[in-house]
Amino acid sequence: QKFCSQCGTVLNQLIPPDDNRLRDVCQHCGAVHYQNPRNVVGVLPVWQDKILLCRRAIEPRYDKWTLPAGFMELGETTAQGAMRETQEEAGAQIELGPLYTVIDVPHAEQVHFFYLAKVLSEDLFPGPESLEAAFFALDDIPWGELAFRTIITTLEHYLVDVKTGIFPMHHYDIPLPAPGSTTSRHGKINLD
Amino acid sequence: QKFCSQCGTVLNQLIPPDDNRLRDVCQHCGAVHYQNPRNVVGVLPVWQDKILLCRRAIEPRYDKWTLPAGFMELGETTAQGAMRETQEEAGAQIELGPLYTVIDVPHAEQVHFFYLAKVLSEDLFPGPESLEAAFFALDDIPWGELAFRTIITTLEHYLVDVKTGIFPMHHYDIPLPAPGSTTSRHGKINLD
Ligand SMILES: [Zn+2]
Ligand SMILES: [Zn+2]
Repeated sequence: QKFCSQCGTVLNQLIPPDDNRLRDVCQHCGAVHYQNPRNVVGVLPVWQDKILLCRRAIEPRYDKWTLPAGFMELGETTAQGAMRETQEEAGAQIELGPLYTVIDVPHAEQVHFFYLAKVLSEDLFPGPESLEAAFFALDDIPWGELAFRTIITTLEHYLVDVKTGIFPMHHYDIPLPAPGSTTSRHGKINLD
Repeated sequence: QKFCSQCGTVLNQLIPPDDNRLRDVCQHCGAVHYQNPRNVVGVLPVWQDKILLCRRAIEPRYDKWTLPAGFMELGETTAQGAMRETQEEAGAQIELGPLYTVIDVPHAEQVHFFYLAKVLSEDLFPGPESLEAAFFALDDIPWGELAFRTIITTLEHYLVDVKTGIFPMHHYDIPLPAPGSTTSRHGKINLD
């Protein structure tokens, strides 16, 4: 941020009184412009013994497969946002289930939330953010072509839990990987 | 937001192409200024059979009691933010436990996260955001003087779970109350 969104003056970086970190401060109108992490909300949509993935039509990770997910908007709950993203990206009719993964991604300045969801109809109407939407058997998940680590780890948890039929909420962090390392059991690392 | 934080030009509200809601758009440099919900992160600190509360020295809810909590900062996890807020507001040494409540508060454009925590020492060093920090027996919680509904409901869950010693993660929404209504078993409603 270079300019004050309240008055248009050039901002300075300084530590305000009673604060302990650098902020973008306007010395004309006094506004302090805080920046905060964003939430990404999505679903793991299950249709019979298959899961629904979307192939991204946008950057980052154009052409990679993802669970339907996107940034949470003002005025909605995480659940409402997850349903909205499913509609926008896959055009799928779903019944939302419980919150399934809550994932801290500090290097991306994000927290990701994925809900389990039951797909109610095989008909899909992918929107402009998706090249296609498709169902995958659990043995056919394109592990090497998934867009984000939060997608990979959410699906990994599902593959374990589906054996017992018990789906507890999983909360964990995605740490920044060491250069060249791999942390996933399934293929390459992605940076989110 | 009135001015573009990238170039200082006056912003317009319009729906960008491939979007479906009004955004603050700069027609000079093309920047779209998204706004997103913020996360509040805190702890429910337990010392023997008491819990730790802080009396707020800042608005909103000056003078009301709260669990240590505040806005999540860039680059930290929800857990790191919760520990930082406990240090800043209570100066308490804690050992962080599991994530305990995840609460959607859509009318406040927030999601709240509270972790269970074990207080390691009776010594408290409340910071400038707290008038005082103090331990309360469960029978002495000042229900009518609590700052936010997410504090009230987190403590209500704790009072139920402490009877069994099992503390599962609770995820729920705080809906906007109807004017004049009360939803808490304990005293008055607050708006967050
Ligand atoms: Zn200003
Ligand atoms: Zn601009």
